[in-house]
Amino acid sequence: MTTDPPAVTVGVDFGTLSGRALVVAVEDGRELGTAVHEYTHGVVESALPGSGSRLPPDWALQVPQDWRDVLRFAVPRALAAAGVRPEQVVGIATDFTACTVLPVTSDGTPLSEVAGFAERPHAFAKLWKHHAAQPEADEIVRAAEESGQGWLGRYGGKISSEWQYAKALQVLREDPGVYAAAERWIEAADWIVWQLTGEENRNLCTAGYKGIHQDGGYPDAGFLALLHPDFVDFTAKLEFPLSQLGTAAGKLSAQAAALTGLREGTVVAVGNVDAHVTSAAARALEPGHMLAIMGTSTCHIMNSDVLAEVPGMCGVVRDGVVPGLWGYEAGQSGVGDVLAWAVRTCAPHEYVAEARRVGVSVHELLTRKAAAQPVGGHGLVALDWHSGNRSVLVDHHLSGLILGLTLDTRPEDIYRALVEATAFGTRMIIEAFEASGVPVEQFTAAGGLLKNTFLMQTYADVLGRPINLLASEQGPALGAAIHAAVAAGAYPDIRSASAAMGRIERSVYVPDPARVAAYDRLYAEYRTLHDHFGRGGNDVMHRLRALRTARES
Amino acid sequence: MTTDPPAVTVGVDFGTLSGRALVVAVEDGRELGTAVHEYTHGVVESALPGSGSRLPPDWALQVPQDWRDVLRFAVPRALAAAGVRPEQVVGIATDFTACTVLPVTSDGTPLSEVAGFAERPHAFAKLWKHHAAQPEADEIVRAAEESGQGWLGRYGGKISSEWQYAKALQVLREDPGVYAAAERWIEAADWIVWQLTGEENRNLCTAGYKGIHQDGGYPDAGFLALLHPDFVDFTAKLEFPLSQLGTAAGKLSAQAAALTGLREGTVVAVGNVDAHVTSAAARALEPGHMLAIMGTSTCHIMNSDVLAEVPGMCGVVRDGVVPGLWGYEAGQSGVGDVLAWAVRTCAPHEYVAEARRVGVSVHELLTRKAAAQPVGGHGLVALDWHSGNRSVLVDHHLSGLILGLTLDTRPEDIYRALVEATAFGTRMIIEAFEASGVPVEQFTAAGGLLKNTFLMQTYADVLGRPINLLASEQGPALGAAIHAAVAAGAYPDIRSASAAMGRIERSVYVPDPARVAAYDRLYAEYRTLHDHFGRGGNDVMHRLRALRTARES
Repeated sequence: MTTDPPAVTVGVDFGTLSGRALVVAVEDGRELGTAVHEYTHGVVESALPGSGSRLPPDWALQVPQDWRDVLRFAVPRALAAAGVRPEQVVGIATDFTACTVLPVTSDGTPLSEVAGFAERPHAFAKLWKHHAAQPEADEIVRAAEESGQGWLGRYGGKISSEWQYAKALQVLREDPGVYAAAERWIEAADWIVWQLTGEENRNLCTAGYKGIHQDGGYPDAGFLALLHPDFVDFTAKLEFPLSQLGTAAGKLSAQAAALTGLREGTVVAVGNVDAHVTSAAARALEPGHMLAIMGTSTCHIMNSDVLAEVPGMCGVVRDGVVPGLWGYEAGQSGVGDVLAWAVRTCAPHEYVAEARRVGVSVHELLTRKAAAQPVGGHGLVALDWHSGNRSVLVDHHLSGLILGLTLDTRPEDIYRALVEATAFGTRMIIEAFEASGVPVEQFTAAGGLLKNTFLMQTYADVLGRPINLLASEQGPALGAAIHAAVAAGAYPDIRSASAAMGRIERSVYVPDPARVAAYDRLYAEYRTLHDHFGRGGNDVMHRLRALRTARES
Repeated sequence: MTTDPPAVTVGVDFGTLSGRALVVAVEDGRELGTAVHEYTHGVVESALPGSGSRLPPDWALQVPQDWRDVLRFAVPRALAAAGVRPEQVVGIATDFTACTVLPVTSDGTPLSEVAGFAERPHAFAKLWKHHAAQPEADEIVRAAEESGQGWLGRYGGKISSEWQYAKALQVLREDPGVYAAAERWIEAADWIVWQLTGEENRNLCTAGYKGIHQDGGYPDAGFLALLHPDFVDFTAKLEFPLSQLGTAAGKLSAQAAALTGLREGTVVAVGNVDAHVTSAAARALEPGHMLAIMGTSTCHIMNSDVLAEVPGMCGVVRDGVVPGLWGYEAGQSGVGDVLAWAVRTCAPHEYVAEARRVGVSVHELLTRKAAAQPVGGHGLVALDWHSGNRSVLVDHHLSGLILGLTLDTRPEDIYRALVEATAFGTRMIIEAFEASGVPVEQFTAAGGLLKNTFLMQTYADVLGRPINLLASEQGPALGAAIHAAVAAGAYPDIRSASAAMGRIERSVYVPDPARVAAYDRLYAEYRTLHDHFGRGGNDVMHRLRALRTARES
């Protein structure tokens, strides 16, 4: 497959605040050039652009034009940075945050761009972290439990407020006009492909993980009627043949070619999710190989040839990561976010001054001070639930805890206890998989937290396993570029493309036996607290949250 | 009793870091002049003065000469500040931290001043907060339980590591030579009186609260033999007729007159404890009137005509506060200390900058930000056990907890939750008294925390009771001056002197019914956590502490 000039693909990763294009050699996955475009509107959380209407708490919207601008600006710049001509590009693929979802007309026009809708908040795209549909999510779970829906177990017994059904039901209830005008209800992951090819296409991954599509179909009309009489037509807004990952969705349209600078007719791969596509970049596709994408939150992706109902995982989808295997997803709501809270809240002024003097971030200073301690030296144990627990409890109304405080407790002690708590949270997830008969044989990490070597070593010691690393800083975009190569026919399937183009460094962090033994004791304490406060022993976190919410309203 | 020039007394209060002399009019208690002397050696915690020998963790010593210097410097300065001549002074009284205790020879010379002993740490005075005798305290409790000692119930079932027996047993074990050379083992409260009169005297209050003196005697030799064969002679180092509070210990010696500038022959009252003597200053002597001295820690003093065994109180002593009543003592290990921890640990640099800009302390800034919230608005509940729990659990190996943390939790939320936790801790103590049949009818506060009006209002709301205040900033010294007036015969008893010379402002803080109701819900959560972590539901705090201690050694 060596060609001169080399064949390349373009992977475009749509994140929460920006989009990135990456140009990759098909032959070996080497990264030739990249460019980032920041979204003009970022995350719309407090007021609508244009009209300035205030948004309620927990809302998070995005503006579709910002995504088109990534195609317009980042793709040509990445090509230029790579020194690559359009003729070399054999395929393009995208990946997106999910569930990020929007109402569109039958030709794919976002409702927020339709006359008369620009001032209606529900006409905009709802970003993954729009959390205002919790009542709807609760109701979906209750109705599914009561009516015995078989699919509920595939999602660990819970449907998230972040997903398609909860968000759509919120629209129907709060702005039925928008709901009615939404001829299609589509993941941004699929909408962006529509922009590239000019034709609707839907991928099996987001439909499965975010759209309750299981065993060939969506929830039936009888179930939808339990939620709202006008919700029975919801399936019609989704229904479309689902494409396997790694296949071609179509060819680049003339309009999209003009936008991106690529040639009309370039192969476009089907849409995909940022976390899931990263597995290809990390060569973490074989059964039992867990990939943890660790950033503000952590997402765990793993294939298995076993189908099991693992309590509290986010979802299991046939062909959800690669064709032929069951793809599992689990997650931790807050990881980097929780450490950032500690920096924001528990870093006294003399620490900030010291960090400036030494020329490091406060994160780095706290890490250095924390790293010098023996395991258990701070006397603390924490629960890392500042933004709830995604897996294994699936309860966003839980909250964080720090126990063991003394007058001698220092900021670095708290920081370290929180690092450890997030590692314990990962171990809970791994143990939940294994207890359900789904073995976890390898653990590979990716994401922004890799730069904290103390944190990574702590994970190795807490998990008692070696940790591999994804050896690219552009995991999702590289994964997308790998999918593009498969869609373009350069490789027969995702696994072979991943083997050639992906990059993994094995056993970069190796557990230390003495620390492993010490952490076993602390983990036992974490687990006891986890179960006590997370499984009904004391529902104080729910009561405090209810009291707080009542006071705020 | 009006005389011209007025008759005065001098109260001398020996605190942790300094001593204060206060000159008071016998007629009405008005404060005429005061002076403070800081101890040269402060609290000796890390290295011995002179030799510089390092001290182990949890040690806290003092140097007796520092106390003599208070008599030498502060008393004459207070007289000068008051514009009072020695002939006007009808009596002097002292009060002291307790249990602060030292080994002395038969003539009262501190062992640390005897040739050959100046480099032996155990020859020095052990300050109340010397906490290195915890193993000895544990053993005393175990032996008392196993041998069925009747006095144990008078101390809530626990003997503190701070008290005379635990500290002396530590000396015997770790430096038997010092133990043998200590002809007398004496409270600093009594030693300072010996310095004034030239003759040994012992008061009933410290013997009862800190020396296990109950029903006319000390623990018997059979019990002492259970602890250590050489400990059987310990009673001989203590034994002395005990004086009632408010009586005269003797007259000022010529030597002490030279030291203080007072006249030889001036009446000297028997020794007393700082917290207990403050009850006289606050007119809080009637049965059921609880006085809380609120500072870095809080001490609760209350008289009752009922004898009951209240779980986890510090002690009940007949005549322990005033003759004729049962004097109860309870306490909270950390109050102001815990808030200072929050300021030290959870005040980010922009808060420190804002406090400087506004010209207030960080405590005050956090208080202002915290005060603006509705009850329960922060969503937190905390356990105020950063330095353990003195009452009602009597467990110094417990630790603090903060629960309900979210990514939105701010420093002022943590500060407020800790303020509330200390108030809940006070409510637990009051409820323990009442559940044992000892009614608490009035609540009066004294001490450094009175200046925080938000904190005081929170206490009123959490307790659901009005709070009176001691209307003097020199409570202990004023209380001592009142005792001096009684010893000098100016009043027939402490209660009548207190009524004439003490100062109380009634119902300064009144509970708000809506906040009382809201706090009832939070208190219920506190209580559940208190019992879970404090009464064996989950002993994680003990295990974490053991792990920490093992790692440090």
